[in-house]
Amino acid sequence: MAKITVGILGLGTVGSGVAKLLADDARFRVKWAAVRDASKPRDVDLARVRVTDRPFDIIDDPEVEILVEVAGGVDTIYELIKTGIERGKHVVTANKELIAKHGSEIFELAHRNNVTVLFEAAVGGGIPLISTLQRGLQANRISRVAGILNGTTNYILTSMEQRGAGFDAALAEAQRLGFAEADPRDDVEGFDVAYKTTILASLAFGSFVDVESVYKQGITGITDSDISVAREFGYKIKMIGLAQRRAGGLDVRAHPMLVPARHPLASVEGSNNAIFISGSAVGEVMLLGPGAGQMPTASAVVGDVINLASALRLPDFAPYFQPAIDSKRSQACSIEDCESAFYLRLEATDTPGVIGNLGHAFGAHNVSLNSILQRGVTAGGAATIVLLTHKTSERSFARALREIESQPTTRRIGVALRVFEQAS
Amino acid sequence: MAKITVGILGLGTVGSGVAKLLADDARFRVKWAAVRDASKPRDVDLARVRVTDRPFDIIDDPEVEILVEVAGGVDTIYELIKTGIERGKHVVTANKELIAKHGSEIFELAHRNNVTVLFEAAVGGGIPLISTLQRGLQANRISRVAGILNGTTNYILTSMEQRGAGFDAALAEAQRLGFAEADPRDDVEGFDVAYKTTILASLAFGSFVDVESVYKQGITGITDSDISVAREFGYKIKMIGLAQRRAGGLDVRAHPMLVPARHPLASVEGSNNAIFISGSAVGEVMLLGPGAGQMPTASAVVGDVINLASALRLPDFAPYFQPAIDSKRSQACSIEDCESAFYLRLEATDTPGVIGNLGHAFGAHNVSLNSILQRGVTAGGAATIVLLTHKTSERSFARALREIESQPTTRRIGVALRVFEQAS
Repeated sequence: MAKITVGILGLGTVGSGVAKLLADDARFRVKWAAVRDASKPRDVDLARVRVTDRPFDIIDDPEVEILVEVAGGVDTIYELIKTGIERGKHVVTANKELIAKHGSEIFELAHRNNVTVLFEAAVGGGIPLISTLQRGLQANRISRVAGILNGTTNYILTSMEQRGAGFDAALAEAQRLGFAEADPRDDVEGFDVAYKTTILASLAFGSFVDVESVYKQGITGITDSDISVAREFGYKIKMIGLAQRRAGGLDVRAHPMLVPARHPLASVEGSNNAIFISGSAVGEVMLLGPGAGQMPTASAVVGDVINLASALRLPDFAPYFQPAIDSKRSQACSIEDCESAFYLRLEATDTPGVIGNLGHAFGAHNVSLNSILQRGVTAGGAATIVLLTHKTSERSFARALREIESQPTTRRIGVALRVFEQAS
Repeated sequence: MAKITVGILGLGTVGSGVAKLLADDARFRVKWAAVRDASKPRDVDLARVRVTDRPFDIIDDPEVEILVEVAGGVDTIYELIKTGIERGKHVVTANKELIAKHGSEIFELAHRNNVTVLFEAAVGGGIPLISTLQRGLQANRISRVAGILNGTTNYILTSMEQRGAGFDAALAEAQRLGFAEADPRDDVEGFDVAYKTTILASLAFGSFVDVESVYKQGITGITDSDISVAREFGYKIKMIGLAQRRAGGLDVRAHPMLVPARHPLASVEGSNNAIFISGSAVGEVMLLGPGAGQMPTASAVVGDVINLASALRLPDFAPYFQPAIDSKRSQACSIEDCESAFYLRLEATDTPGVIGNLGHAFGAHNVSLNSILQRGVTAGGAATIVLLTHKTSERSFARALREIESQPTTRRIGVALRVFEQAS
């Protein structure tokens, strides 16, 4: 049988892994790889591959049937992929930002051109998560998807927890070991989890969610002392992507949470990812595995390529792979309309009446307290106070917080985090 | 679009769940359900379904495109399914015994008749495990699949562990709560896990494994004291299906094992299932979820039906779904050629020299001991001795065991269990 011709956009870490796996598979011929600097030496045998710094060499080549996009970024890549689709090429991409921002247009264009776009590697690295949502659980109405979707932040939070490292030290270590980028903002400020959660929500709920409407909070405000206090309360702090149906609409967010220590998500360590899916028939299913890394991500990309290849000679197969997502965009609910229990850390003056002031502010806004803990006093005479509320509306909590900020006994609000709720 | 006509063989627990899910889906029409006793009342609305006690009513009806088999059993069902396939019907089955014993012939026949046979519900209940092995991890060479595949035995072992119940009491409770059949042999003697492990091994290694060659051991010999001693040693006892590649061939078995307490499989409780898959590119992936029960199993069956339906109008789509398994059968290695560390419990006379005798028997056969523990003495003057060996060949361990059996200080061999090894 004739080989299927593949062109790869990007030969970074993941791209090199993809090139290695495809080179071992007799069904494929990697004809092209587009890179930024064609003279740079690569850790992969490129003897039979044409390496170019002009991506249109690939797009313009009618022999290329499958375009593998592992370059990252959005603007240039979006244009390239649109042109590729218009020229009848199938696309396999690992680009979560692209799918989260432009999935609706991309799948619409693919539909019109009768080609397939697959993106298993965009969420959960090597974990076959997209196909599970798209295929395995089709008989279910999905009520919630919740998980640890970012290996970098989970690595940082795990080392803060296990070694008592501060955020900066843990980030520096993660960078040294290759678990965090030189510019870590995409990960630690929650963008990456927001993209991935947007994609999962779109698949789970069958409607493209506007990524701009997804609330996000990063992990940069979390200290080692938050982690140890959370442990005393019976929780671990994890960066969570959460997508659930609520009476008012779709509740989609990306933020750190206090996860009960006995919940399986609490024991997901290092750069692993794990996702809980709640379905109407199946109940709860969890998938766990490496959420990043060269070969796990390449495994997902090449899995898509092989999957596509096994259908490629069927006439008119593309509709089979088209994700069942309504092209009309949905907005996630405003965070103000959500409900959570909260963890709050603040610094107050070490004077009588502090606890009374706090209690008054919460009471005035109908927020009920679960626990309150005063930690040692600093040299400057400030006391660190940590408290957990019962479940309350974001609006009430925010109002109480504004009142607390204005109290004379409050020196500084540290961090407010939400508490993870087990599925009922 | 015209509805797809479905016939269901079997309206027991799972069958009723399937009928409910399909009734809610406008794409399908359940025209027939075949049952043993058509007059029996059922917990599902059958107003639009023809209920028959002659399954050939369904097989003979040319309108039926998809045959859903949730009846169980092998002999009669095998003939029905073969005839259905020959008449061009696609098949979705939850029958692990059928696929484990006759998968090779069934897929061969399906191939010749250009129809599709799907079986997601046969292993792991609602967990989308088969599709993950078949599709999601296609870029990987699978080296090992290991997991908890039977909800009944896991429920029994969990209640023995958590409530200190004996095997008989835990089984009786499981029966009362519907987690075990009136005749529990299929589950507690390891047949069910052997069928499921055979299927997983065939998919993972691309060759139909002969189910008769798969070694199995049940959980009936395990006492509450084994469970508490195992805990002292740092393990939990779990019923494990294990399929791995070894130098000599395929190592496929179903037996209880001591699993290190910190391993994620050790914390899988109640009727849940969990499976670890080790792949060359992805590393380790774990899937966890409800391994049995009406709606989880129905979720997997109907997932297959929907998946099939979305390809049904494509010309010649069946090869896409054909599992990549060589029709030539493989034999699992003989258990004698395997290696494990062992747990052994025995009763000996409470006299000097007992430990020396044991040590001598193991030493003579080159089995090295890890731990040894003597428990209290019974009224009859017998001492219970429990020991853990280091990794050794089954052959050496069996020889040492025969020598120990013949020693005058040995009253009775209790149980020998293998120790689970973490993937390297």
